[in-house]
Amino acid sequence: MDIILNVLPLNEAQREAFRAAAPWAEHIFRPTSDFPNSAMECPPDEFTTATIVVGCVGPEFLRKCPGLKWCQTWSAGVDPYLAPGALQEGVILTSAVGAYGQSVSEVMLASLLSVMKRLPTYRDNQRERRWADAGRVKTLRGETVLLLGTGDIGSHLAELVKALGARTIGLNRHPEKPLPCFDELYHISELDELLPQARVVAMSLPGTAETAHIMDARRLSLMKPDAILVNAGRGGAVDCLALAQALRDGKLWGAALDVTEPEPLPQDHPLWDCETLVLTPHVAGGDHLPCIMPNIVDIALDNLRRYHSGEPLRNRHL
Amino acid sequence: MDIILNVLPLNEAQREAFRAAAPWAEHIFRPTSDFPNSAMECPPDEFTTATIVVGCVGPEFLRKCPGLKWCQTWSAGVDPYLAPGALQEGVILTSAVGAYGQSVSEVMLASLLSVMKRLPTYRDNQRERRWADAGRVKTLRGETVLLLGTGDIGSHLAELVKALGARTIGLNRHPEKPLPCFDELYHISELDELLPQARVVAMSLPGTAETAHIMDARRLSLMKPDAILVNAGRGGAVDCLALAQALRDGKLWGAALDVTEPEPLPQDHPLWDCETLVLTPHVAGGDHLPCIMPNIVDIALDNLRRYHSGEPLRNRHL
Repeated sequence: MDIILNVLPLNEAQREAFRAAAPWAEHIFRPTSDFPNSAMECPPDEFTTATIVVGCVGPEFLRKCPGLKWCQTWSAGVDPYLAPGALQEGVILTSAVGAYGQSVSEVMLASLLSVMKRLPTYRDNQRERRWADAGRVKTLRGETVLLLGTGDIGSHLAELVKALGARTIGLNRHPEKPLPCFDELYHISELDELLPQARVVAMSLPGTAETAHIMDARRLSLMKPDAILVNAGRGGAVDCLALAQALRDGKLWGAALDVTEPEPLPQDHPLWDCETLVLTPHVAGGDHLPCIMPNIVDIALDNLRRYHSGEPLRNRHL
Repeated sequence: MDIILNVLPLNEAQREAFRAAAPWAEHIFRPTSDFPNSAMECPPDEFTTATIVVGCVGPEFLRKCPGLKWCQTWSAGVDPYLAPGALQEGVILTSAVGAYGQSVSEVMLASLLSVMKRLPTYRDNQRERRWADAGRVKTLRGETVLLLGTGDIGSHLAELVKALGARTIGLNRHPEKPLPCFDELYHISELDELLPQARVVAMSLPGTAETAHIMDARRLSLMKPDAILVNAGRGGAVDCLALAQALRDGKLWGAALDVTEPEPLPQDHPLWDCETLVLTPHVAGGDHLPCIMPNIVDIALDNLRRYHSGEPLRNRHL
């Protein structure tokens, strides 16, 4: 019999839904204290009999489970589990891609509009009781938004900015496959040619070797002088020191980051002092909208059903 | 022959467009230095021969023009011209209603989303180099936005929030007339019944005796405890001291104001220190988006054509 170790913070109705979806398994509910934070917990050894894990526990625990067959994460990104040797050979890995798109894209939009309308400067002025016009602002209407990453988050953001009047260009590895809400799609290798066209460059890339510092000093310099960079994928996709320099030199209109490299941002990092930067501490997803946990539960329940009936799993990475 | 005193800051192509639109008139171009600010200028007496004025000059100047027939303002609000005795009997008054809807509604949306996602708090934390999760946030998706005022600005805002997934309820004096982007329309007299239903109350009302302090302490207390108030119409439509008290007492999620009473906000006003308030200094309209002046010019040119051909003028207030 399968033993499902479920570390999601669930209410009783949700636990019952898991039991009903997989009556063929034993269910162990052991919510972790810090959903959905990155410091992944290592449950005690009594739980290493688990054959299925739902939620995010550290790979060091998973390696101790001799019968482990499948791990369904609560996160969308699974980079810690893809590192060489992180999981035993043959363990299935599925993620909660799809649960965070609305939440993350809405924070990206709010931060982007805030930068466009100079709200960070007006906030600073408010704190100093200064009533002062900060000058002209930007609009999305009629402007081009270049989206690096067209998955759950990128697609949600494309829908939002398109609804506000922008033209959307998506970059991914399979541009031949049409996607709704993208006016144009190109292969990620065409990034250099497209950067100079965009008013906004919005990033929602996973953390991989290919995406590390994909926006480096050279590529930042290819952006329009009054363009805006937004990143809510992985912090390492942007060279944060180069971005701070570009912002301080006035080479960009501004930027909005929900993720940085490293996290938390060190006390002496130059990004803190950038006036035209909106900085949020990796909170665009997490459990910051009430819809997120139900989304994760829905994905996990659907995959349990698929697992038992032998159908292909959603969001399969391994 | 008509003499048109035009105080708009125009480029040569725009001046030529005015000459071409009204070849039957003499055109005097005298751009004011501080478009589009509220401190209206008083041109020298040599210009009191004007029969038509395009732009905003003080009523004290207009009263000195014996032949004045018509004033076309660059502003959307015309409250200074409607005061008793401001204009001579029989002078036509038209406004630039329609020129500012995009600009003002976009700032309202940016400020609203900023409040929903706690960006003011994150900005304060950024200034203090603090990487800290500020907690759950709000979304527009599935929420009800109550719009007080359904004119140019209110209609634009309704379109934006609807595109982001909100339900829109409009309040005006003619709810029997359907308007696009409003799911429901009610008479303004039903305000008290509708306030408890709304997650967001968005105000774009003109400054009149009826709208003065329409959102007073009593009505603020009718809002949901986690609702958000947005005002970009006239500052006097909100009792700003009562709002500051409600914000400090945690009776609302937050507020976004582009207009206050009085303006500028006095140094000792309690609104300055409200953490959950986004405050912008009456800059949502003005000339803060490049599309605004062309919009004003289009309205004025159309009205000059209508004036000469005897058609009804657009945006006529007197």
